[in-house]
Amino acid sequence: MFDVYYDEITRMTDEDIRNLLSKTLDEIRPTNKLWLEAAKSRTTALAIPPRALGRLHEFSEQLCAVRETLTPRTENRAVVVMAGDHGVAAQGVSAFPQEVTGEMVRNFLAGGASVNALAREAGARVWVVDAGIIPDLGDSRPTEQGGFLALKVARGTADMSNGPAMTLSQARRSVAVGCLVGARIIDGGADVIATGDMGIANTTSSTAVAMALTGRSPDGLVGRGTGLDREGLDRKAEVLHRILECNKPDPKDGWDVLSKVGGLEIGGIAGLVLAGAHRRRPVIIDGLISTAGALVAQALCPSVTDYLFAGHCSQEPAHRIMLEHLGLSPILDLGMRLGEGTGAVLAMGILGAASRLMSEVLTFQEAEVTRGEAVV
Amino acid sequence: MFDVYYDEITRMTDEDIRNLLSKTLDEIRPTNKLWLEAAKSRTTALAIPPRALGRLHEFSEQLCAVRETLTPRTENRAVVVMAGDHGVAAQGVSAFPQEVTGEMVRNFLAGGASVNALAREAGARVWVVDAGIIPDLGDSRPTEQGGFLALKVARGTADMSNGPAMTLSQARRSVAVGCLVGARIIDGGADVIATGDMGIANTTSSTAVAMALTGRSPDGLVGRGTGLDREGLDRKAEVLHRILECNKPDPKDGWDVLSKVGGLEIGGIAGLVLAGAHRRRPVIIDGLISTAGALVAQALCPSVTDYLFAGHCSQEPAHRIMLEHLGLSPILDLGMRLGEGTGAVLAMGILGAASRLMSEVLTFQEAEVTRGEAVV
Repeated sequence: MFDVYYDEITRMTDEDIRNLLSKTLDEIRPTNKLWLEAAKSRTTALAIPPRALGRLHEFSEQLCAVRETLTPRTENRAVVVMAGDHGVAAQGVSAFPQEVTGEMVRNFLAGGASVNALAREAGARVWVVDAGIIPDLGDSRPTEQGGFLALKVARGTADMSNGPAMTLSQARRSVAVGCLVGARIIDGGADVIATGDMGIANTTSSTAVAMALTGRSPDGLVGRGTGLDREGLDRKAEVLHRILECNKPDPKDGWDVLSKVGGLEIGGIAGLVLAGAHRRRPVIIDGLISTAGALVAQALCPSVTDYLFAGHCSQEPAHRIMLEHLGLSPILDLGMRLGEGTGAVLAMGILGAASRLMSEVLTFQEAEVTRGEAVV
Repeated sequence: MFDVYYDEITRMTDEDIRNLLSKTLDEIRPTNKLWLEAAKSRTTALAIPPRALGRLHEFSEQLCAVRETLTPRTENRAVVVMAGDHGVAAQGVSAFPQEVTGEMVRNFLAGGASVNALAREAGARVWVVDAGIIPDLGDSRPTEQGGFLALKVARGTADMSNGPAMTLSQARRSVAVGCLVGARIIDGGADVIATGDMGIANTTSSTAVAMALTGRSPDGLVGRGTGLDREGLDRKAEVLHRILECNKPDPKDGWDVLSKVGGLEIGGIAGLVLAGAHRRRPVIIDGLISTAGALVAQALCPSVTDYLFAGHCSQEPAHRIMLEHLGLSPILDLGMRLGEGTGAVLAMGILGAASRLMSEVLTFQEAEVTRGEAVV
């Protein structure tokens, strides 16, 4: 099903894309709760006072349930940065001009951005995907260590403040791009995938997705993005009102929401989430934009949340509400609001530690340590 | 000054120990705020929207100030687990029996404990120091990869519920042990040190230290430690009242507090903190017990807090108050309450990421990325 080479997806027909997506969605299952129970029993046996490592136990148990093993591995790590441009940038909703999307993609490929530095610390490969940026950055050049994938669905979205951001066909293609990339990276050996984004004006799109899918009004949810001043913030709130008013996305329909108020990188991230759930691999989502992608994936297939970890809580005000909607509690909370996948990559080491609890810590019996009379 | 080999400290006279400590304390300086300013300027130049990585920028800037460089390194990592026994264990203040201290030290040396697993994830060597446990575990056996140091000051402390835990000489020796170990590990190449502890009943001692040095009453500050039931918790609160009543530690005198209500591993941790500040290396403290050690170090030398990072916030109720007293905000908050250094080691990767921001991320100019009009 995912046996097409990366670039071939750009030559697939709409019908092929629809079939690929519908088969993927059909095949996704919730995690098996028996593995969760088995993992909890293992935790109890370890030479650790009852659940004294707090949420780290939850992470390790969820990893066991996702991978269906009591020795989940997280050594082979990849972060996938989905990039796309947004027509709504024309409305002055960002503190940075639109050309920065392509400039930053070049910076990712040069290894000089924040996500590259954090990925080196985490031991993760960086994949950068052109899901729909305006400039052309050449052909795909995948290597063993990550690389660039030119899978452009369109040269950015249309301005969603006066109509839909994209066609339904484009929305489906963007999700298929993420599905394909995620599946190939996993089939290439990745134990865990972190999602990231680049796209000037994409906090506007992501906030619109959040409002559509959580049913919240924009009041109090509009954030400064990369650093809007007071005036810019008011303008962004006003644009968000217009976006929702003119598009009226259907909160019950992930495809409708994605196509009307989403972005090509947001669709790509939704696809990565679907691929992780389909292939039973943990997916660590980043901040506002990645979580918008996860909300779209959840709308398409509610079981995907079993496979998700929230890397961090963003400074963007809508983010906490989105995480609650997904039923996720963030691993880190460091006041970050950069995107690129930085918060997700930063949390990879925590999941790595959680996986080692299960496979490397001795039991009371093995370590010959007296069990106390501790209660939880 | 720290040119004695590890075990030689056990043969030093009280006067030698006093001289070593007084020289160390005299030589500790606050960090140079000019380096902090230089680091903040560097942050502003990076191809990142204004301070969009939140607290990660603060960590990287503090690392610059500590190391007096704009390219601080954190690759060479060590966690030092200080172990000691507590006479107050006889009062039934722990859910585990006293022999578990020695059993867990053996588990650390076998590599089978939580701190070992988390240290492998962080790429940190594990040092285990007998600062005063009851059993003998053989001679010191340091290796390139960490190891065991037999620097026992006494076979546990006396029962502090009816008199001082130790003599002033023992308190000084425990701090000197930490100073020496920290200095030698740093001089051996460590860029960053995490502190850890092992000692049945040491949440009682640490809570007593916290109450003495922060001036808080025990009400609401007494925690379940490794897992006390309701009855045990009431007993622990009652014992803590007795400890403070009979010892009356002087809140202005770190030595008085440590000797009366502290522990040999707590003194050892205070010494590690002093060594880090003396050698200008970041020290990541763990939970309740490590923070009690840091409070003692702060009482002896207020400048040490410039060199400290709080790895995490423990579930123990006193911990947050202790961190506030030190002026520290925890990096992680995952509901952990194990000790061993687990929270500190888990945060090492976050500091590693912070250090890479400074040395690996390109500036707007270098990356040829357009600067926007973003505001902080």
